[in-house]
Amino acid sequence: MAEEPQKTLKVAHKAFEHFQHGLATGEWNQFFDMLTEDFSFWFPMGKFHGLNEGKEKAREFFQYVSQAYKNGLFVTLDRVTSNETTVVFEFRDEGMLFGELYKNRVAVSFDVRGDKICGYREYFGSDGKSN
Amino acid sequence: MAEEPQKTLKVAHKAFEHFQHGLATGEWNQFFDMLTEDFSFWFPMGKFHGLNEGKEKAREFFQYVSQAYKNGLFVTLDRVTSNETTVVFEFRDEGMLFGELYKNRVAVSFDVRGDKICGYREYFGSDGKSN
Repeated sequence: MAEEPQKTLKVAHKAFEHFQHGLATGEWNQFFDMLTEDFSFWFPMGKFHGLNEGKEKAREFFQYVSQAYKNGLFVTLDRVTSNETTVVFEFRDEGMLFGELYKNRVAVSFDVRGDKICGYREYFGSDGKSN
Repeated sequence: MAEEPQKTLKVAHKAFEHFQHGLATGEWNQFFDMLTEDFSFWFPMGKFHGLNEGKEKAREFFQYVSQAYKNGLFVTLDRVTSNETTVVFEFRDEGMLFGELYKNRVAVSFDVRGDKICGYREYFGSDGKSN
């Protein structure tokens, strides 16, 4: 395998570890450090539905996520696929959302530029009640 | 790149072409021919929410899909990622759902076994109204 796809995978795995840590603990600084200034993300629903542009928007979003899942959201990683610039993580998650049991199946697709993440798209595979 | 991941990609691309053709036209036979007998799929919502097991269940599902989008559902493929056994397609789709404009962002993750698809997971990235 060429060097580039391997490097892309390595950067994305590191970012995903920090993403997972952020969801579990509410500590997002390591994840934020890996985002480009022009980072953008797509989210499937609610207040952040659609395209969200800029790192500040990301900070706002992840702070909101950690308020919603204040005791943490816990991830079980099932599968990773990649190409030269993009890495998709399929996982299940579970936690308490504003005090109610929440479970979902999720795919997140990270775009890598250099040693940072310049964008991601999130997709839901279930209904928030089962995974 | 090793032979196996390339073969996996090739099989999945062929299946995805048939999947796309089925969505656009309602003709699913070429896609069904590429599914293993023990094929299973996960769907995010509605009547087929969760895990659906067996090729017959798949036939029922795709016939239902083509009744719902009777003038076709049209796919724009954005991105493909893969590993040795799995290929993820990120796309946007658009069509008329029971007569109303429907748009979504979607990720489907195909599992390949030999020259067939043995399972897939579907994830939604938007709300059915925008993509």
